[in-house]
Order: sequence, then C-alpha cells, then structure tokens
Amino acid sequence: MTTWQRRHILSLADFTPEEYQIVLRTAASFREVLSRRTKKVPTLQGRVVANLFFEPSTRTRNSFELAAKRLSADTLSFAPGTSSLSKGETILDTAKTYLAMGTDIMVIRHQEAGVPMAIAQHFDHLGAKVSILNAGDGQHQHPSQALLDLFTICTTMDAADPSPRLLQGKKIAIVGDILHSRVARSNLWSLTTCGADVHLCGPPTLLPQLFDRWGNRRITIHHHLEPALRDADIVMTLRLQTERMKTNLLPSLSEYHQNYGITHGRLRLCQPQVKVMHPGPVNRDVEISSALMDDPQFSLIAEQVTSGTAIRMALLYLIGVGNSEELKNLKL
Amino acid sequence: MTTWQRRHILSLADFTPEEYQIVLRTAASFREVLSRRTKKVPTLQGRVVANLFFEPSTRTRNSFELAAKRLSADTLSFAPGTSSLSKGETILDTAKTYLAMGTDIMVIRHQEAGVPMAIAQHFDHLGAKVSILNAGDGQHQHPSQALLDLFTICTTMDAADPSPRLLQGKKIAIVGDILHSRVARSNLWSLTTCGADVHLCGPPTLLPQLFDRWGNRRITIHHHLEPALRDADIVMTLRLQTERMKTNLLPSLSEYHQNYGITHGRLRLCQPQVKVMHPGPVNRDVEISSALMDDPQFSLIAEQVTSGTAIRMALLYLIGVGNSEELKNLKL
Amino acid sequence: MTTWQRRHILSLADFTPEEYQIVLRTAASFREVLSRRTKKVPTLQGRVVANLFFEPSTRTRNSFELAAKRLSADTLSFAPGTSSLSKGETILDTAKTYLAMGTDIMVIRHQEAGVPMAIAQHFDHLGAKVSILNAGDGQHQHPSQALLDLFTICTTMDAADPSPRLLQGKKIAIVGDILHSRVARSNLWSLTTCGADVHLCGPPTLLPQLFDRWGNRRITIHHHLEPALRDADIVMTLRLQTERMKTNLLPSLSEYHQNYGITHGRLRLCQPQVKVMHPGPVNRDVEISSALMDDPQFSLIAEQVTSGTAIRMALLYLIGVGNSEELKNLKL
Repeated sequence: MTTWQRRHILSLADFTPEEYQIVLRTAASFREVLSRRTKKVPTLQGRVVANLFFEPSTRTRNSFELAAKRLSADTLSFAPGTSSLSKGETILDTAKTYLAMGTDIMVIRHQEAGVPMAIAQHFDHLGAKVSILNAGDGQHQHPSQALLDLFTICTTMDAADPSPRLLQGKKIAIVGDILHSRVARSNLWSLTTCGADVHLCGPPTLLPQLFDRWGNRRITIHHHLEPALRDADIVMTLRLQTERMKTNLLPSLSEYHQNYGITHGRLRLCQPQVKVMHPGPVNRDVEISSALMDDPQFSLIAEQVTSGTAIRMALLYLIGVGNSEELKNLKL
Repeated sequence: MTTWQRRHILSLADFTPEEYQIVLRTAASFREVLSRRTKKVPTLQGRVVANLFFEPSTRTRNSFELAAKRLSADTLSFAPGTSSLSKGETILDTAKTYLAMGTDIMVIRHQEAGVPMAIAQHFDHLGAKVSILNAGDGQHQHPSQALLDLFTICTTMDAADPSPRLLQGKKIAIVGDILHSRVARSNLWSLTTCGADVHLCGPPTLLPQLFDRWGNRRITIHHHLEPALRDADIVMTLRLQTERMKTNLLPSLSEYHQNYGITHGRLRLCQPQVKVMHPGPVNRDVEISSALMDDPQFSLIAEQVTSGTAIRMALLYLIGVGNSEELKNLKL
Repeated sequence: MTTWQRRHILSLADFTPEEYQIVLRTAASFREVLSRRTKKVPTLQGRVVANLFFEPSTRTRNSFELAAKRLSADTLSFAPGTSSLSKGETILDTAKTYLAMGTDIMVIRHQEAGVPMAIAQHFDHLGAKVSILNAGDGQHQHPSQALLDLFTICTTMDAADPSPRLLQGKKIAIVGDILHSRVARSNLWSLTTCGADVHLCGPPTLLPQLFDRWGNRRITIHHHLEPALRDADIVMTLRLQTERMKTNLLPSLSEYHQNYGITHGRLRLCQPQVKVMHPGPVNRDVEISSALMDDPQFSLIAEQVTSGTAIRMALLYLIGVGNSEELKNLKL
C-alpha cells in the first residue's frame, strides 16, 4: 500500500484510487473513535488549525472546528465581518499573518475559485511548512464534502470495509444545479475515479452539455428525471440556491420540485436499496420531499453530517501528521 | 435521597423539591471547585456541548460556554447571523445537523416559546441520546436563571448547606415587567415549590391579574411598591426592556423609576437583612438605583453571575453524566 | 535581578529597563516553546482569559487567544455586536459580569483612551484579584504591540540574548501618522527608555511639533524622509488609516507614498543592515512598497507577528502567575 504524500488538499482532480483508499480507511478508524464515550485523541495536541472562512459558513466551519478539537488541536477562527480585510489588507497577507502566528493547517473557504490553491502555491514557494485544506472555493471544488459523500456511500455498502472499489459499476444520479455546484464538481472527480457510472440531471440552464466530458470521464447528461433515476443505486440531490430565480435561470420553486424534486414515488424507478443524499442545508419540498428527507430507510442526510466529522478528522490527521512512518503505525 | 432522572431541562413547572435539592447540592460542590486555583474538572472530557443561541446573547452564552469548558467539554457555537437559517433551513434541521455531528448536549435559546421543548420531543421520538437545556424561550421559561437565583438566595442564607428548605415562609418580592419575563415565570415555579411567599409588583399593563393563580400556587399581586416590599426578605427586580415604551405599555423611564425603582430608602420597608437581585443587564437608575446596585451590603447581583457558572456546571453535569450510580459517587 | 510586581499592563510610560528585561527574557523562553512540535505549556490551566474587544479586531484578538490557549487557559470572547452593550449596559458593568464569572485576566481593547485603566482602577478599589491588559485604547497606548516590536528588534540583533541594552545608541525612525497612532505612542516610551535615538517623520498634519518632548525624552522631528532615514538602524512604518483623507489631513495616497513611502531605493540612506517594520495590516504601496514588504532581507513584518504570540504568552504569564517565587523558578 502506498503512503500519504500530500501536504495540501485543494482539489480531487488528481486523487488516485489509492489515496481515496487511505482517506476512507483513516476515516473509518476515526468513526470508531467517535462511537466511544470520550470522542477525543491527542494526535494534534499543541498544533494550530486556523479556520479562514472568507465566505461565511456555520455547518462546514463547525464540522472542521469539531474535527480539530477532537484531534486536540487549538483552533483559530477568522470572521470576515470584523477583520483586517475591511481595512484593505489582501487575502494573502491575512493568510501570512496566520502563518506567522504559527498556524500548522489552514482550512480556507472563499467565494472565488482558486484562492486556496494560490495561497498554497505561494506558501510552498516561500518554503513554509503549512498545509492548506480547501473548504470550498467559488464554483470550483469542495473536496471534503465529496470525500464525506464517498465515505457515506461506501460505509452504507460495507460498514466493516468501506473501500472505494465498492463503487465500481454503480449508477449514481446527481440532480439539480450542476452548473453552480462545487460539490457536484468534486463528486464528479471522486465518483468517476472510483468507477461509478455518473448520471447528471437538471434543467438545461443549470446543466450545460459540456459536462459530458468531465476530465475525459464517461458521464451521462439528462434533462428529464426518469432516465436519470432508472436503476440508480444512489441519488444525490443538490441544494438549489433560490437566488437563481432572480437571474431567470429557473421559473419557480414549485415547478422545479415538479420536474426535479425527489420523492418516494420517484424512487420506485431506482434500485430497491437506493439511498438519497443531500449536502445540506435542504430546502424542504424543493429539492426533496419533506417525507423522504426524514425517512431513515432511504435518507443518508444525517449520516453525511456524521461522516463529515470523521472525514475531516482524517484529512486533518493525514496532512497534519504528514509522516508516512507515523501513518503506517497509526494507533488511534 | 432520590436520584437524577431527567434527560432534558426545559421548564421548572414540574420540578420537585428533591430535584431542587440535588441541583443545589451539585452546584455547591462545583462552587468549591471554582474557588480553587485550577477551576477545572475532567467530567465531560470528549463530550460536545453546542450552544445554539438563535436569539443573540453574550452573558448567558458565555456563562454556559465557561461552564462547559470547566467540565472539559468541547464546545460548538451557533451564530444566527451567518448561518444556514438565512439559507432557508428550518430550526429543527439545524438542530439535527448538530445532533449528527455528535453533540451530546444542546443549550438552546430562541425568541419563540416552546422551541427547545419541541426539539427535545422530536429527538426523543427519534430515540436520539441527546440532552436539551432551555436557555430561554420567548416569554416562557429560563430555568437556569431561576436555579441560579435559588442557589444565590440559599447560599446567602446558609453557605454550608444551601437547601431549598431555607425558603419556607420567606417573603420574596418580584418587581417589574412580569408579563414579558421568562425569568419571572421560571422563578414563580421554583420559589413557590420551595415554600416561599411570592409577591409580584408592577404596573397593571405589565402585571395582569391572572398571575394570582400561577399553577394553583398562592401568589399576591401588587400594583404599588410599598405593600410588596414590606418585611420582604428578598427583592428581585427585573430588567425593563425599554422597547416597551414604544408600545405605550409604560409612560417614561423616570416615572417608572419613581414608582417601581428600588433604592436604599425603599429598602427600609423590608427586613433588615434584605438582599436585592437582578438578572442583568441592568438599566442603572431605572429598575434600581446605581448606588444600591453597587452596595455589597444589599446587592447580590455579582453573586448571581458567579452562581450562574456553578449552576450551569451542575446542570450540564447532571444531564451529561445521566447515571444515578455515577451521581451517587460524585467525586469532583 | 528584580522580580515582576505588576498586576496590570496598561501603559509603558512607567516601565523600567528591568521590566523590559524580564518581559524579553520570558518571551525568549516562550519563543523556544513555539519552535517545538507541541507548542503548549500547562501554566495557566484552569484559569480564564476574557478577550473584551469593544473595538473589533481579528489580528490582535487572535494573537491573544492563541497565546492564552498555548498557556492552556480557557478563553471567553466578547462580541460588541450581539452584546448587552446594545441593551444599555455600561462598559464597567460588562467587565464586572466577566469578573463575577471568574475571569482571571481581562484583555481589553476600546476605541476610547483610558477605558482599560479606568476598569483596572475600579477593580483595584473593589479589591478584586483580576489583571487587566490594555490591548489598545483609542489613541493612547498599545503596550503589547510596542513590546513585540522591542522583542523583534532585540532578537534580530542577538537571538541568544535579546536584551533591551542592545538598543543603546541605535537610530530608529518611525514614519507615518504619528498623531493618531497608539502604536507610536507606546513605542516612544519603550524605545527611549531603552536608550535608542528616536526620529519621527511625517507630514505636519500628522506629526505636530509637540512630540519633540515626549516624557522629557530626546526625540527628533522630521517632515522630510531623507534626514529621518539617514544611517537609521531600524525603520518603523505605521499604518495609514485611509479615512484620514476624508478629513483633509492628507492629499492623496499616491502623494503620500511619493513623500513618505519606504522603498528599496530609500533604504540606501540607512545602515546596510537596516530592517523595516510595520504593525499591520499593511496598505501595500502606500506606507511601504510591495516588493520591500516581501523581501526577507529587510522586512521584519512576519517576524513581528510571530514575536506577538511569544510576547503575549509572556505578558499573560507574568500577570497570571503573579508570584515572584514562581517566576524566579520559571520552568517552561
């Protein structure tokens, strides 16, 4: 088995199957830790994790913060509202300040694509020993979300050994606003690399044809729901940002639900054991019916959140420990 | 002695004298911890306490956060401004997200009555092993405030054994905006259950007659201050929310102070050892004269804040440990 | 060697050379801790540090928070936006609430000069055992910034023994908006007490003549850059608050840079080993050229941030331990 080599986690575009395997195995170890009464390990004690959320977030920020605390790291938070940014400081200078304070890992979210990567390249150029983790950049990528989705699917299929190989030949439908979704983009990389058949579905305004050749992977495009759902093993719905209405990309929420909303009835087209996923927060009865969202037989939505903590602990661990020897002897 | 049975603390309406006794004894143990140089115990290490303050608060949130940290718990905070709520997520879905992250105790404040109870019922229905602590819901209840008030009174009367029995036959006057006060409502339950004679006092617009039969308890209503204060052992003033002026419930701040403000002079009507309390934050020279507020002979206001940390440690401990055996062998 | 006697750190006006020596030695010990993999010591375990930033700040607040966490203290934060201040509570009452919660050290920033000192005097009068650390008050003082500047300069001159005596006879130029700068005021005290020759430089609107007799120290005033820079050992630039333009104190940013901006070219007037400093956040190409700011041969700006954590750990340690015996036997 190969060992972990990355300092940063910026994009899933070049992740190998072996890397997915390492991430999932590490997350599985941490998931076991989380089932204990004392959900804490001393792995990152004395290290500093800075959550730099230039784009506001509660859910993802809290998930990273909790993951860091459970690894016993100290955490720092950046709040754009009251920050030096409003005093004219550049984003890079803000990041450099956290670096100079002694930050070991920066978790960065920014509304523009490429910001975490630019910061990582700059720091590598300076020879700084800091890790950057992309927590969502514009419409580009959201790697930890796609990894928690992968972990959720694989643990559902085989809790004892959640291997990425389990995805081979499975049909996974992703439904909704593909165009604006960094979650969809990251999932396209991970799911196709692990061998799944990915079917995208959405209205033409939110799903341009160009997605059919994503990184030379085989992807099927649908503008109607039925063929996308037929025999699907997994249905992922995406959050609909209601501000899209204003820009005339969508007619109305009820018409969207009529055409693309996932319901118990529509799931009858899928495999019997089909599961439904959503990155949250959900607009109930828009992307998915309220009844289906709350039905534990089909919905993995709460499971995704739980997986999020385990995956983020795994990612912080892998880039924070950054030593193959330590990694091989991983004792949690 | 009975043992602790509650998973949630939502309301004091059905608290028994035995439960008040357990809470006060546990708080007394923690108060001793707080007088040490190292004010920390490992009781809740590895557990997660999430402070979900849908209604903003600094004072109560900090008090719960400090209590949680002193029990060595990890804490998460919810800030409504930057949250998924603004993205259309329901309150219950927000709470479910924190549950799925592995939260053990949720401390919830919301501007609408009943929200913490509804969340607790929903989670019980799901079989979730999470505890809900109501940190103030609309005009309904604020249990931890009433418990810290009870603890403050009892420790003032007998620091070595702050038993709720000490309240029997004592006259306690509560002065101010009873109608809109969740603090007053929670205090009504605790004080009457412990046997105190409660006298409410305020202008008719802020104190309707219906309060005279609060849960079939004997309560006396006054619209003038003198009979309320006469021979009182404790005077509790309530914060006046100045926005009440706008709705014509009150003529002016100075007239209010003239009629209902507590001063050194007016305390001469009370018992010689009378003490004055206020839940804070105080409008100086409105509810209470500035000189009286700062007079340690009479004012218990700072003492209430200190009691708050001990009481909140006790409450988190009781619902967090949730095991009568552990509780009986409580070693701090 | 004398021992540490101060409970509060409010101003550098009466700091003695011996006190600077103690602060720098303590910071040097902590700097060594920060170079370890586990950057944490248990010194303040169980103590509470409250960061009361009435004036918003990310940089300084994070620096203090990190320093407190690395000393294993518990931290509380005050956010003016959602606080009781907006409910009419006085600043002193807010501070008293944190005192009553059991805060051991309050780090206070306020937009008005004198607030931290007034709170400290009030608490001393009450006999409260709490320490106040001024983290910036109006245009008055910012002691921890001047101390980290001092530490940065001295460690650059002699990393093994960063003594304040190293400053004797050195020429230090401070350039920019002296009038409105609390950083400059605190630096004036520390630099002159340690024996440096301080040269101030800025436009007459931002540098009145009265600065030439600061506390009876010998200070030279310049309105042109060349004589200020000639043979300087250290050049400190100050942040230009761009809102000064609006009040007609300055013509334009480009004209300011033309007259007072520090560049590689201008540094040729200085000593060959000259270093440039800035308290941050920097307006690139206004106070200093972007190329110079990023040039590690000259720029100490990142070093200042790193020194900030060590200095703040030292200050929290000195006022938090507050016992000369413990101090003498300092083992980190």
